[in-house]
Amino acid sequence: MGAIHKQSSGVNSPSWSYPTVPLSDYSTAASAGITKQVLTGIAEGAADFIVRYFTIPPGGKSAFDQHRHQHGVVITHGTGRVLLGEQWHDLSAGDAVFIDTDEIHQLEATGAAPLGFICVIPRWAEGDSCAASVK
Amino acid sequence: MGAIHKQSSGVNSPSWSYPTVPLSDYSTAASAGITKQVLTGIAEGAADFIVRYFTIPPGGKSAFDQHRHQHGVVITHGTGRVLLGEQWHDLSAGDAVFIDTDEIHQLEATGAAPLGFICVIPRWAEGDSCAASVK
Repeated sequence: MGAIHKQSSGVNSPSWSYPTVPLSDYSTAASAGITKQVLTGIAEGAADFIVRYFTIPPGGKSAFDQHRHQHGVVITHGTGRVLLGEQWHDLSAGDAVFIDTDEIHQLEATGAAPLGFICVIPRWAEGDSCAASVK
Repeated sequence: MGAIHKQSSGVNSPSWSYPTVPLSDYSTAASAGITKQVLTGIAEGAADFIVRYFTIPPGGKSAFDQHRHQHGVVITHGTGRVLLGEQWHDLSAGDAVFIDTDEIHQLEATGAAPLGFICVIPRWAEGDSCAASVK
């Protein structure tokens, strides 16, 4: 059965809010204030992939990470940059990032507003220890 | 190896543009002008899931559809509604929709601007005949 999670912030809000989705603290050794919300996941019956929404506060960064699963990321808010291997790439709203298996990666919010993004992982990676940081 | 597709439209543009991603016409019997772009897919090496970006022009609607794969949808632009089974639900930016296996579904752009959205499907469904419409 399908499910809908309504976003409750205004269209020009610097990030999205989901009253019907639990918010997890995904702070890392590098940064406090990182949030994660699972938009379509195990609770909804997801069989193949999990769609999450993250925010990283200004100046914050996700863990310096490497995983055996891939990620599909689409930036929704703010500006930032992503480390892929040894190279940093600037990011803004709409930019899409494919993070490959075992690729070193880190996301950083470089602007005055939070960096918000959709991040998709395979269903098999959810609950895996390597899915426990922002990636 | 990772990949980045930069979005080239301004932050307040009514939809996103990706110069490095081929644009497919996904018009249906119901509507012309529907576009699809694969942001992280087979070309990037996706193993488990495919992230696509669609736009439906004002007044347009996707095919009345039913598939054996699930979808994870996040609205990025505009306003619209989605049919899940027999019930229509209003949508605006940030809203997340989980479409379950075999669930009847259709998306409609109800505002003056295009309806833009991210739509994720499993890798195994890409190239399947049932992945050939917007869903």
